[in-house]
Amino acid sequence: MTTSTRERIADFHAAYIRCIGSDRLEDWPAFFTEQCHYIVTTAQNVREQLPAGLIWANNRAMLEDRVAALRKANIYERHAYRHIVGQPFVTGEDAGTAQAETPFMVARIMHDGHTDLFCTGVYVDAFDLGAQPLRIRSRQVVCDSSRIDTLLAIPL
Amino acid sequence: MTTSTRERIADFHAAYIRCIGSDRLEDWPAFFTEQCHYIVTTAQNVREQLPAGLIWANNRAMLEDRVAALRKANIYERHAYRHIVGQPFVTGEDAGTAQAETPFMVARIMHDGHTDLFCTGVYVDAFDLGAQPLRIRSRQVVCDSSRIDTLLAIPL
Amino acid sequence: MTTSTRERIADFHAAYIRCIGSDRLEDWPAFFTEQCHYIVTTAQNVREQLPAGLIWANNRAMLEDRVAALRKANIYERHAYRHIVGQPFVTGEDAGTAQAETPFMVARIMHDGHTDLFCTGVYVDAFDLGAQPLRIRSRQVVCDSSRIDTLLAIPL
Repeated sequence: MTTSTRERIADFHAAYIRCIGSDRLEDWPAFFTEQCHYIVTTAQNVREQLPAGLIWANNRAMLEDRVAALRKANIYERHAYRHIVGQPFVTGEDAGTAQAETPFMVARIMHDGHTDLFCTGVYVDAFDLGAQPLRIRSRQVVCDSSRIDTLLAIPL
Repeated sequence: MTTSTRERIADFHAAYIRCIGSDRLEDWPAFFTEQCHYIVTTAQNVREQLPAGLIWANNRAMLEDRVAALRKANIYERHAYRHIVGQPFVTGEDAGTAQAETPFMVARIMHDGHTDLFCTGVYVDAFDLGAQPLRIRSRQVVCDSSRIDTLLAIPL
Repeated sequence: MTTSTRERIADFHAAYIRCIGSDRLEDWPAFFTEQCHYIVTTAQNVREQLPAGLIWANNRAMLEDRVAALRKANIYERHAYRHIVGQPFVTGEDAGTAQAETPFMVARIMHDGHTDLFCTGVYVDAFDLGAQPLRIRSRQVVCDSSRIDTLLAIPL
């Protein structure tokens, strides 16, 4: 059975959010190519064509640094998060690369058990189709909310 | 690779919610056949077999009117919304039509960045399988909440 | 067209949450094999390797009893719930069984129409691949929140 690009991307997302959901943050950079772009920004920034948001990286080593910083910042207790992603919509594809947009929701679970919607938005991705499994060449995380200060808490 | 009806419907939903999520509301009526039924109602209305809910259309031109009205009502700032849909469950299929039910959640993002669950429910759909891509012949949006006055804010 | 295990599991989840979402709780036990394990626990319990959580069953008859108890407890009005599940991630597969992890979110809709996130977590499942459609041999519902007293309200 041949797997469609859409299916491969859906599989990718399932593995990616499972990695974060099970707190294996050290494995997170491996979902990206060595040279990669990772940006967390807001829909408002994108609309107004403002430069990149709060979080920005252009290679995998920077993502590894980010995980190390998160671990250091979070030596005390931290909240839990739960990602859900929708179906990817493939916006372009050639021999080596596929572009896709995928909506996501992230819930935050407080220590007292209270659960709320922490963040919603769209992943705007370019994938390296030559990698097995897929790797991200470029991910722009476009958050719907403009209050992104707390987004430092976890990879998106 | 042959694509299953379930896959085609999942693709349809991904395109549909992307259209709304990126505020291209003028493109929304094209997801429906020329003659179509579009109803927004509540689970309670359905249980009690009451007539259709707040929003009702039986052709594409009415959907276009609805978008125009929304644009007029929303000349000032408006909230952002984010849809997530689950896997479609195909409830019936013949040569030309497929029926499916698909759960959805819609988050609302306020101007101050606060995000909450705006609406949940099920799409009860009939699709024209002859169209490429699929088109909706009939969509009944069954909202779980009975407080649907604010549902006028955005297409579901 | 051959359907992948991942697709079969996604189909399973769609049918499962539709059953609960449409309040056909009496049909819920049929999603399990006759001898089965069903446990609702919390991420904290799993991390600390504590014994099973609040809800526990090791055969289908116990699930039927649970539905009967829920019906009895809920002779008065009850809230509505809406499940959304993400893509399953297949963690293992042999001739007869597949293991998968699937994130979920459940919204609760109050009588006044207010909607909030009730529960999030992961299904850790083992499926009987020989059954058509799939059946659950073992489901561990790992809730992110540790406040699980109210989880008695509905099957997860």
